Amino acid sequence: MYYDFRADKLREECGVFGIFSRHDDVALNTYWGLYALQHRGQESAGIAVTDGSEMEVQRGMGLVGEVFRQGLPALRGHIAIGHVRYSTTGSSLPANTQPLLVTYSGGHISLAHNGNLTNAHELRQALEKQGSVFQTSVDSEVIVNLIARSSQGTIEDKIKESLTRIKGAYCLVIMTEDKLIGVRDPHGFRPLCLGRLGGGWVIASESCALDIVGAELVRDIEPGEMVVISDAGLKSERFGQKDRKALCVFEYIYFARPDSIIDGQSVYEARFRMGQQLARESGLAADIVISVPDSGTTAALGFSRETGIPYAEGLIKNRYIGRTFIQPEQKKRDLGVRMKLNAVRHTVQGKSIIMVDDSIVRGTTSGKIVRMLKEAGAVAVHMCVSSPPIGFPCYYGIDTAVRKELIAATKQVEEIRQFIGADSLHYLSLDGLKQSITNVASDAMCYACFNCDYPAGMPACTAAGGNKYVFE
Amino acid sequence: MYYDFRADKLREECGVFGIFSRHDDVALNTYWGLYALQHRGQESAGIAVTDGSEMEVQRGMGLVGEVFRQGLPALRGHIAIGHVRYSTTGSSLPANTQPLLVTYSGGHISLAHNGNLTNAHELRQALEKQGSVFQTSVDSEVIVNLIARSSQGTIEDKIKESLTRIKGAYCLVIMTEDKLIGVRDPHGFRPLCLGRLGGGWVIASESCALDIVGAELVRDIEPGEMVVISDAGLKSERFGQKDRKALCVFEYIYFARPDSIIDGQSVYEARFRMGQQLARESGLAADIVISVPDSGTTAALGFSRETGIPYAEGLIKNRYIGRTFIQPEQKKRDLGVRMKLNAVRHTVQGKSIIMVDDSIVRGTTSGKIVRMLKEAGAVAVHMCVSSPPIGFPCYYGIDTAVRKELIAATKQVEEIRQFIGADSLHYLSLDGLKQSITNVASDAMCYACFNCDYPAGMPACTAAGGNKYVFE
Amino acid sequence: MYYDFRADKLREECGVFGIFSRHDDVALNTYWGLYALQHRGQESAGIAVTDGSEMEVQRGMGLVGEVFRQGLPALRGHIAIGHVRYSTTGSSLPANTQPLLVTYSGGHISLAHNGNLTNAHELRQALEKQGSVFQTSVDSEVIVNLIARSSQGTIEDKIKESLTRIKGAYCLVIMTEDKLIGVRDPHGFRPLCLGRLGGGWVIASESCALDIVGAELVRDIEPGEMVVISDAGLKSERFGQKDRKALCVFEYIYFARPDSIIDGQSVYEARFRMGQQLARESGLAADIVISVPDSGTTAALGFSRETGIPYAEGLIKNRYIGRTFIQPEQKKRDLGVRMKLNAVRHTVQGKSIIMVDDSIVRGTTSGKIVRMLKEAGAVAVHMCVSSPPIGFPCYYGIDTAVRKELIAATKQVEEIRQFIGADSLHYLSLDGLKQSITNVASDAMCYACFNCDYPAGMPACTAAGGNKYVFE
Amino acid sequence: MYYDFRADKLREECGVFGIFSRHDDVALNTYWGLYALQHRGQESAGIAVTDGSEMEVQRGMGLVGEVFRQGLPALRGHIAIGHVRYSTTGSSLPANTQPLLVTYSGGHISLAHNGNLTNAHELRQALEKQGSVFQTSVDSEVIVNLIARSSQGTIEDKIKESLTRIKGAYCLVIMTEDKLIGVRDPHGFRPLCLGRLGGGWVIASESCALDIVGAELVRDIEPGEMVVISDAGLKSERFGQKDRKALCVFEYIYFARPDSIIDGQSVYEARFRMGQQLARESGLAADIVISVPDSGTTAALGFSRETGIPYAEGLIKNRYIGRTFIQPEQKKRDLGVRMKLNAVRHTVQGKSIIMVDDSIVRGTTSGKIVRMLKEAGAVAVHMCVSSPPIGFPCYYGIDTAVRKELIAATKQVEEIRQFIGADSLHYLSLDGLKQSITNVASDAMCYACFNCDYPAGMPACTAAGGNKYVFE
Ligand SMILES: Nc1ncnc2c1ncn2[C@@H]1O[C@H](COP(=O)(O)OP(=O)(O)O)[C@@H](O)[C@H]1O
Ligand SMILES: Nc1ncnc2c1ncn2[C@@H]1O[C@H](COP(=O)(O)OP(=O)(O)O)[C@@H](O)[C@H]1O
Ligand SMILES: Nc1ncnc2c1ncn2[C@@H]1O[C@H](COP(=O)(O)OP(=O)(O)O)[C@@H](O)[C@H]1O
Ligand SMILES: Nc1ncnc2c1ncn2[C@@H]1O[C@H](COP(=O)(O)OP(=O)(O)O)[C@@H](O)[C@H]1O
Ligand code: SF4
Ligand code: SF4
Ligand code: SF4
Ligand code: SF4
Ligand SMILES: [Mg+2]
Ligand SMILES: [Mg+2]
Ligand SMILES: [Mg+2]
Ligand SMILES: [Mg+2]
Repeated sequence: MYYDFRADKLREECGVFGIFSRHDDVALNTYWGLYALQHRGQESAGIAVTDGSEMEVQRGMGLVGEVFRQGLPALRGHIAIGHVRYSTTGSSLPANTQPLLVTYSGGHISLAHNGNLTNAHELRQALEKQGSVFQTSVDSEVIVNLIARSSQGTIEDKIKESLTRIKGAYCLVIMTEDKLIGVRDPHGFRPLCLGRLGGGWVIASESCALDIVGAELVRDIEPGEMVVISDAGLKSERFGQKDRKALCVFEYIYFARPDSIIDGQSVYEARFRMGQQLARESGLAADIVISVPDSGTTAALGFSRETGIPYAEGLIKNRYIGRTFIQPEQKKRDLGVRMKLNAVRHTVQGKSIIMVDDSIVRGTTSGKIVRMLKEAGAVAVHMCVSSPPIGFPCYYGIDTAVRKELIAATKQVEEIRQFIGADSLHYLSLDGLKQSITNVASDAMCYACFNCDYPAGMPACTAAGGNKYVFE
Repeated sequence: MYYDFRADKLREECGVFGIFSRHDDVALNTYWGLYALQHRGQESAGIAVTDGSEMEVQRGMGLVGEVFRQGLPALRGHIAIGHVRYSTTGSSLPANTQPLLVTYSGGHISLAHNGNLTNAHELRQALEKQGSVFQTSVDSEVIVNLIARSSQGTIEDKIKESLTRIKGAYCLVIMTEDKLIGVRDPHGFRPLCLGRLGGGWVIASESCALDIVGAELVRDIEPGEMVVISDAGLKSERFGQKDRKALCVFEYIYFARPDSIIDGQSVYEARFRMGQQLARESGLAADIVISVPDSGTTAALGFSRETGIPYAEGLIKNRYIGRTFIQPEQKKRDLGVRMKLNAVRHTVQGKSIIMVDDSIVRGTTSGKIVRMLKEAGAVAVHMCVSSPPIGFPCYYGIDTAVRKELIAATKQVEEIRQFIGADSLHYLSLDGLKQSITNVASDAMCYACFNCDYPAGMPACTAAGGNKYVFE
Repeated sequence: MYYDFRADKLREECGVFGIFSRHDDVALNTYWGLYALQHRGQESAGIAVTDGSEMEVQRGMGLVGEVFRQGLPALRGHIAIGHVRYSTTGSSLPANTQPLLVTYSGGHISLAHNGNLTNAHELRQALEKQGSVFQTSVDSEVIVNLIARSSQGTIEDKIKESLTRIKGAYCLVIMTEDKLIGVRDPHGFRPLCLGRLGGGWVIASESCALDIVGAELVRDIEPGEMVVISDAGLKSERFGQKDRKALCVFEYIYFARPDSIIDGQSVYEARFRMGQQLARESGLAADIVISVPDSGTTAALGFSRETGIPYAEGLIKNRYIGRTFIQPEQKKRDLGVRMKLNAVRHTVQGKSIIMVDDSIVRGTTSGKIVRMLKEAGAVAVHMCVSSPPIGFPCYYGIDTAVRKELIAATKQVEEIRQFIGADSLHYLSLDGLKQSITNVASDAMCYACFNCDYPAGMPACTAAGGNKYVFE
Repeated sequence: MYYDFRADKLREECGVFGIFSRHDDVALNTYWGLYALQHRGQESAGIAVTDGSEMEVQRGMGLVGEVFRQGLPALRGHIAIGHVRYSTTGSSLPANTQPLLVTYSGGHISLAHNGNLTNAHELRQALEKQGSVFQTSVDSEVIVNLIARSSQGTIEDKIKESLTRIKGAYCLVIMTEDKLIGVRDPHGFRPLCLGRLGGGWVIASESCALDIVGAELVRDIEPGEMVVISDAGLKSERFGQKDRKALCVFEYIYFARPDSIIDGQSVYEARFRMGQQLARESGLAADIVISVPDSGTTAALGFSRETGIPYAEGLIKNRYIGRTFIQPEQKKRDLGVRMKLNAVRHTVQGKSIIMVDDSIVRGTTSGKIVRMLKEAGAVAVHMCVSSPPIGFPCYYGIDTAVRKELIAATKQVEEIRQFIGADSLHYLSLDGLKQSITNVASDAMCYACFNCDYPAGMPACTAAGGNKYVFE
């Protein structure tokens, strides 16, 4: 029995990395890149390498450090791609690890995907009708089948044709024997950036993965852009019709690492400004500002800076959280939060406290934290959330709860405040959120989980009332 | 570094097992069945189960006991199939474990294969041209793609249509949500038998797997027969055109367990008679008859019975042989045979010896054994082989060496005798071999590796001079 | 090849935990206690349990979560003790895991030790002369041999007699079939506290381990105190002659978790005040204050509060640091710091920065961090260290480097500044350090690694110029 | 849940190996030696090495191949000793693996033990009274404590003094920094032989371990002999008073490998003659003689040779027996024997059969085998046992059942026959057994488990009616 410490969290489903270099150990650099992207997925990891003729993949369940404990793929090559994944329980199977590696009429192809297709189910059915078989439940397999069936001549054209058929959110890194290809969907839901490492190129979900390998951030791959890297250099192509850009705002709120820069916007700066704005909106006063570490910290610092109320560490997070053994009977007890967080009595005792966190999903954890602070002597706990209430599920690659489990889908703010036992509860307004992000136009982002305005629609069966996860 | 104790051996590539029962633990029975078939493949194992709607597979590298150390598939079902595999080095990859489990337009299907298709390469190319992708290098994936693409209505018809396209050797166990299907190719190269367990049915590569689960041997699946087992009972169908039956004679000589009965012929009896015949043909006299255990023992007993020369144990085989750790530098030394066999000095000292083994592949091991016996005091070692010289490779599921590594492909018997240092060397004649097997007509067996008469042709590229293993 | 991310750090050698309760799952609570103490030792973990007659121990290499992945000791009991350990490379052996569990003339005894005896070598030699044998290189084995050889009648008296013979730093948790005993050395070098859990008792290295199991902090075990817990309740005894108290000041500076309270002093408060004092002493001005996370954070907040210079996150620490696979050739490259830390460009670019860390050991890491900040655009980096220069090794349970590797043992502050490339370098003064800790008298602490005033002497052989680690 | 296939067997508790060589890889040779001795113990394995100053040990639970899967001890040395162990359930603990490695006043010493001391309990109590502590429940720890406490000057004298105090069965290999020492108890219960490997020396429980490393059998270590091997060569000493020699006859009957030569007697020859004698004593006639493989085979061949009744393989033993996973509910079913053995229908059908096995312990397995043969069509099964009824437990290193579980302790032969369902049952007479062993005088062997004449007495507490296993 393992306890899942992230049950009350939004879960990013993936991180991707790709490298083309004739001067570096591509597998090792991919390893380090994935290690920097580990926060985007802790369930499985994989690396595929090619040397121009052979292609080899090594995949497994667990953290990057665990999957490659015995070493990296043996093949010495010049292109590699990698993937980390956090998936929903149902699909937590060895078969679902990525990158996928297949042979098709054109040779070998390997593919890793971050995001979520909204028409995967239909495409899969259509492909099955044409005689395709599926061995996994990941979207990558749908995409690779489309590519293999394309009647176009070049791999670039095959991919482009396939992309016209898929809908939803996708960042892809694709590897053939001689090309590294990066694709970002026309809405640009998920981040994907391009870096230069010596004479070679790197593609990654976040710029922190460029930093770790010493690559320089060149720019972000644009929505609707496909970059093709080969010995001939980098070639950029556009595909699909122009669509409204819709970068997932939650990348700034919660998913991405604060040291990453996404579409020109520093994540750190965005969070800091969310905290400042939240301070202005809430108009709260108190003795101290604390954060729910680590995700609430940057906004809490912004809140403190704006108000002048001192920031302090009121909660310590156990840094060895992970797959911790728990006996079945223990699950009933209130163990969860104590395993993860502990109050700093010196900080909180006798204080009125502003506690900043990034978001509330189900609300159960927040309630336990408030109680913990009060038991440690806090006289008042004002909860400040650096995002608006999450009222709608995500169909673009984030595992939010199903709708009825989202506390803000069924409860008003005052009811939520009562539920979590806070003295007051303040969410950042949607407008305030938009203003906090200065480098991305506010109409170039997705806010669907806040306002139900889905830039790329939703899965057919879901729209029709079906279950959220179709293939599980 | 692991030392492969079977490098100088013919290697069977697979064993399969299937069960349909509403009264037994189908996964557990499959586990036991595979355990009894373990001699047919030690590299990987897998079990797939269905309960009528879900389908689950668990696969891994290693012995049955290792792969399922942590337990069997969790799903409680009424149908299960299983597979053990010994493959050639190149394809020794986690991705190649079986049974395969896929979804296609008709639902779930799981498939396990024993044998080797001679047109897999062409079929694969054709399928790829039609847009199929391949994630493994096993024939099963070709077959499952054919089934998925069939335009026939029922699963039985889809399978039958697919079977008309594949050539070579194949025994298949296939599982859908509600059916267990067993197929044996029209030549019947590999064995496949049918058993009854209470109200349920069992299919297995050898009857020893029926024995272990307490099932009763009903009969063998016939060449060109497909049996379909469902809640409606067992239905038998024929497919393909009638072909000459060609059961692999090596199953009797070496592969199968002596306690199995294949196509009505006791393996034990066949081996015993080969030994008797070899005695008659060789006309040898000596102090004792010994065997190279375990494969030579039954024939040695037949030799002894025929001649009256006492049988004795002259060599002891270490029973803990397996994946034994060896340091690289050790490989140069003459370790191999000493790790596996040791002479019984009391038995051999001062004696002239007839040593019986089933076959000679490369001849290196035989040479070392002869030397070991002489060092232990044997005054003469006459090597008797209970099969004819292996001069040609197998394309029907057995990993013989490539042709130029087969000692009998390049050397005359007298040269081989000199190579292994025996005082005399006697092979069983092909006629003698045929006479030893009384329950199967002699024209109903394959002897191609002895006489180059390939009942199902050979792979196109091979015929054209290409390499033996096309997908590696 | 694994890269040790802590090579340039002081290493705490142990954490201990004990529980006596007839109403709780003692093994499970010990598991959680160790999990909260994991920062005190990541190399091995162990739990011993007794039910009044049997005694069982389970120990292994790795994190608590790894060692007990398959479950806890099976024995259901009413007393348990546990241990986590970080040891020097040489003694990183399975045999050295704790708690030790032995039988002796009085029955079973299990013992776990945090600290370092200064006369272990002599005692061991003396015991060996009397005929003792040693199977490990841990001090616990010396202590348990002394207890076993004591001529006293009761276990309490045996222990007390043994304690008169050992010198140095030790906190012990000892378990017999019916007693849980906690001992803290007369100097009180290492922390040890006492908690109440329902009707039971808990002993732990730090109060954060009481918090996690829901126990209430009763008080600290005093230097020279032995508490004996049995069904008869808690009994306290003093042993040894009165000595000057010498709590390790480094517990406040670096080792302990900030949410722990040690000898009545909040660790958080101490660190915060160190930062404030450092601000006053350095008199620095700059654009922002950042910390080297996590150890520098609390002092950095104090520094910021005192000066009014805003605190910001300038470095992000990868939270998946651990036993990360590194290929040999990579060690030459400047990988280390990039794996662990990344600069937040938005925070540091164009700024003059005060960077606060707790201490400098070898100085190599600090130099790399300064360089990283400058590469990210910092215009000036002033390094502020919330402790005095470490000029002398520790003999009381902390693995400081050997003296010549301590940068402050061989270099002046200005030389160190040049070595690390900072624009200025400021250490907290010893007096300033003393003033920062308000709840412990300044003459009741050890500062030997700063001022060479060793409260309990040093090992004989070391004093005589020998090597620091005597048993390795 | 693992099923123990050896529950109805006598279990040898250990095998030992030692090597002194300046020209060979001593750890690797020990590895191979243990691999050849694996049949003497499958529960744990260990190897200790010294290079003259350092000493290193690596031990673990499992087969030799498993324990050293990741490699051998890193230390390159010139002396190594090794141990394999099969222990009783209670003591199946990691702590009980051997060789033991300790430091004492004289330096390092490592020790491995095969046998069982009858006064271990008393010695342990006495040592505990003197202040010794014990971390394991193996006799080796008692012996090493005696050595450490000896007041003698040289290690040889210390050992000799210690040996005067221990009683029972013991073969020891002991290693100091510069000596390899082999000891066999004055009765010589367990075998221990000496071999020459180039310029070096090898000591092993059985000569098959010399064969595997290519060493030449020089002679057996004599009862009451201690050999000391160093750079000065081999020195032999006698210790203790002269005692009657009492080599365990069961080594010939069952434990040892048939290819070993013990005290000048070929194990193979002994077993063969037991079968011949059994044939003469039983006067049976039947269609065929079969064996219960592997232990019954050699005697069955002797039986066949004597009577002229043809020998055939009637039972096939699954060669992948080991730690096979079994679900709890399965244990109730009659799985055990079917997992291990299968009848060869061709051999047994319609035949009257003489079935030879080496011994009967509890009788449950024999009963199941008889039933299996009858189900396969045998018309009569006459069970012939190549040893007398086991009526008494062993105190000299063999894990026989406790007395009341020995079927021959409570039942007459006719009752046993009925219990196992055989048509007739014939045990070899004690006299017949004695005559079968020609190279060892019949008064120089132990037969206590047959005739209750214990050459070295029995443990005090047992004699007084206590439980057999004292330390568990
Ligand atoms: N190394 C890191 N340092 C600081 N923040 C990080 C780091 N890695 C990921 N994050 C951030 O941590 C947040 C998630 O962590 P946290 O709040 O501690 O866990 P939880 O998922 O339980 O909320 C995300 O906001 C992510 O941006
Ligand atoms: N349990 C068993 N008992 C006896 N023979 C077996 C058993 N399992 C498989 N065999 C037979 O063993 C033979 C292969 O074993 P062996 O000769 O010992 O190994 P190798 O593959 O090295 O020749 C085959 O002939 C097979 O029929
Ligand atoms: N969960 C935690 N949260 C914050 N600080 C912690 C936590 N656990 C331990 N610490 C503190 O972390 C510091 C060590 O961590 P850090 O500086 O990140 O690593 P390093 O050992 O590399 O310096 C110590 O000061 C310790 O008090
Ligand atoms: N490699 C071997 N070949 C033949 N016999 C062996 C071998 N190794 C051990 N033995 C013998 O096997 C016997 C035990 O094996 P067996 O009867 O098969 O198992 P069990 O312990 O179940 O009776 C012993 O008599 C031992 O001498
Ligand atoms: S719905 Fe929410 S989580 Fe999903 S992409 Fe849009 S903003 Fe991001
Ligand atoms: S070629 Fe030989 S091994 Fe292959 S099927 Fe024919 S007889 Fe069997
Ligand atoms: S020498 Fe330093 S680290 Fe050691 S106990 Fe004293 S203050 Fe602590
Ligand atoms: S009692 Fe039996 S098993 Fe034990 S030593 Fe004597 S003969 Fe051997
Ligand atoms: Mg969070
Ligand atoms: Mg063989
Ligand atoms: Mg630090
Ligand atoms: Mg046996």
